[in-house]
Amino acid sequence: MSELLVGPVEIVGTGLLGTSVALACRRAGLEVLLTDVSPEHVRTATALGAGRPREAGDRPQLVVVAVPPDHLGATIATALRGGDAVVTDVGSVKSGLHAQVERAVGPQMATRYVGSHPMAGSERSGPLAATADLFEGRPWAVTPHPTSSPEAVAVVERLVELCNAVAVRLSPEDHDRAVARTSHVPHLLAALVAGRLADAPEDYLKLSGQGVRDVTRVAAGSPDLYGQIVAANAEAVVDLLTEVRVGLDSMIRALSDADRDGLRELLDRGVDGTRAIPGKHGGPLRPTASVFVSVPDEPGVLARLFAAAGEAEVNIEDVRIDHDLGRAVGLVELIVDDAQGDHLESSLESRGWVTHR
Amino acid sequence: MSELLVGPVEIVGTGLLGTSVALACRRAGLEVLLTDVSPEHVRTATALGAGRPREAGDRPQLVVVAVPPDHLGATIATALRGGDAVVTDVGSVKSGLHAQVERAVGPQMATRYVGSHPMAGSERSGPLAATADLFEGRPWAVTPHPTSSPEAVAVVERLVELCNAVAVRLSPEDHDRAVARTSHVPHLLAALVAGRLADAPEDYLKLSGQGVRDVTRVAAGSPDLYGQIVAANAEAVVDLLTEVRVGLDSMIRALSDADRDGLRELLDRGVDGTRAIPGKHGGPLRPTASVFVSVPDEPGVLARLFAAAGEAEVNIEDVRIDHDLGRAVGLVELIVDDAQGDHLESSLESRGWVTHR
Repeated sequence: MSELLVGPVEIVGTGLLGTSVALACRRAGLEVLLTDVSPEHVRTATALGAGRPREAGDRPQLVVVAVPPDHLGATIATALRGGDAVVTDVGSVKSGLHAQVERAVGPQMATRYVGSHPMAGSERSGPLAATADLFEGRPWAVTPHPTSSPEAVAVVERLVELCNAVAVRLSPEDHDRAVARTSHVPHLLAALVAGRLADAPEDYLKLSGQGVRDVTRVAAGSPDLYGQIVAANAEAVVDLLTEVRVGLDSMIRALSDADRDGLRELLDRGVDGTRAIPGKHGGPLRPTASVFVSVPDEPGVLARLFAAAGEAEVNIEDVRIDHDLGRAVGLVELIVDDAQGDHLESSLESRGWVTHR
Repeated sequence: MSELLVGPVEIVGTGLLGTSVALACRRAGLEVLLTDVSPEHVRTATALGAGRPREAGDRPQLVVVAVPPDHLGATIATALRGGDAVVTDVGSVKSGLHAQVERAVGPQMATRYVGSHPMAGSERSGPLAATADLFEGRPWAVTPHPTSSPEAVAVVERLVELCNAVAVRLSPEDHDRAVARTSHVPHLLAALVAGRLADAPEDYLKLSGQGVRDVTRVAAGSPDLYGQIVAANAEAVVDLLTEVRVGLDSMIRALSDADRDGLRELLDRGVDGTRAIPGKHGGPLRPTASVFVSVPDEPGVLARLFAAAGEAEVNIEDVRIDHDLGRAVGLVELIVDDAQGDHLESSLESRGWVTHR
């Protein structure tokens, strides 16, 4: 497949995502050309080995546009007009963008455009935070529109493969409906739940456990960035929020009317939803067991705990740390394959750990 | 303080919670009497060293009622009538229960009743899952009503202390409003978000990341148990859900009207809420940094990773494991004090780990 993408690859916007794509392309031996409105970003990315500044005579095979949401449409159009390269972008919302690009350059030129969206990021930004491994094992949506050329799609999917990400092909409209469901609406509802904590008496919040921390964690994300993303996907998000509102009304009604069956139905549906999320390695969720371990809050304790689990030859699927309220003790939840729970528990106990389930 | 609670302590209901309280009391050297409608549970708990079956002449100083929600009121009333013991329970909702008890036994006898609610549990149930450490470092609400006797409150708070839990004193009404906010409403909204995933096309769900998994995790809990708990706290929950509905309406309006400021305000409030949750050891949240590490999916890899972090003398505050979609590679997020992020990253890199931030 390597003949599909021979380079050069031009990266427009050498922030975290752009520079990470550049580093992955360099790792694959491709020539990379760097463009940014900030000469300093280009210098930094160049110094990191991500490529070299684009020059007048360069003719990239593929242009990857990685600029802020508000500038994507215009930058993609400029890239399409500037040569005969395939053009993709890494923006979070796709259907409005495709319409905008087609309006700007016409349907013929737009055949070379294929949108995409890697599900990766960091709380840091800028080229210094970049790494060729950023996309390792992550889903990366590839969103051709009906007139994207098959060759252009193949080139973009080859890029995804180079980055060791997992291509998920969706139409731009399906992509936007998908991220509304898996990302934007969960974020917005987490913000509403968290908002109800903002004015709660301090004593109430002392009863906070791991549940509310998990539900609200994403709501700590940048309101500025999330506001932009969600606003760009307003239509799909509003549709879904309206469905959630119907569910919320049913819930309020069921509780007010002491309608246990109605409440039960809504809770059952939630359980179904948690089971619908793909499990590890994309397969169905396997049953797991949790072993809780009380640990003192001191450096090295987790290393000793995991070493003990390793000696027991148990593969830890997931870990949660539940800090206590006023003491230097934490509770670590080790999540393992259901068949290994008892073995892990007795192995840890025999090594002096205080466990319970 | 040990003279406050001298025993015997009677445990009514020898399931997970009751037997765990019994084991903690035994660890403190108290005599423990066991009662359950299931003779088998009593035999099991006795065999575990949790105490002995209650006999005719026994006169407990404290009765801990740990029966299912629907039976709490009647069982507490029976315990109050049966002697002069202080009586507490471990149910999840408090104000309706207090009213029910007072109606049943009158205000004088009800002075010996003090409700309580340990914030601990497990996905397992029954005496075999019990452990004296279940409450270690966890909040435990103590909810005296206005006429609870101070001596009774002191005895219950001593029990909390014996269990190594952290007493949080609240009125029954405040308790119910608090758990509506920190537990019931987050659970119900997680169920609504998860419900929108239940009928989503499979391809959409491939874009699921850590965010939606966190938001929806609690919704996997037992609909039967949660239905009972939430129904018992319907009033406080409906009040709060109605507030959430106002927020949801504002959100739909802001998105429909492209009102970025309105949206921003709701997201800002969410950020405030996440900051209001008490941090580790009850203190304010300290700024943290995340270091991401790519790890192969094999036994022992986490042990090696934590050992490397331990050698760097960095205290891991939290861990998240983000499994990939189709490859045997996972991404581990190590959350550490902000000042230690750079040091951890370079230490891990120098030991051959692939990190990024």
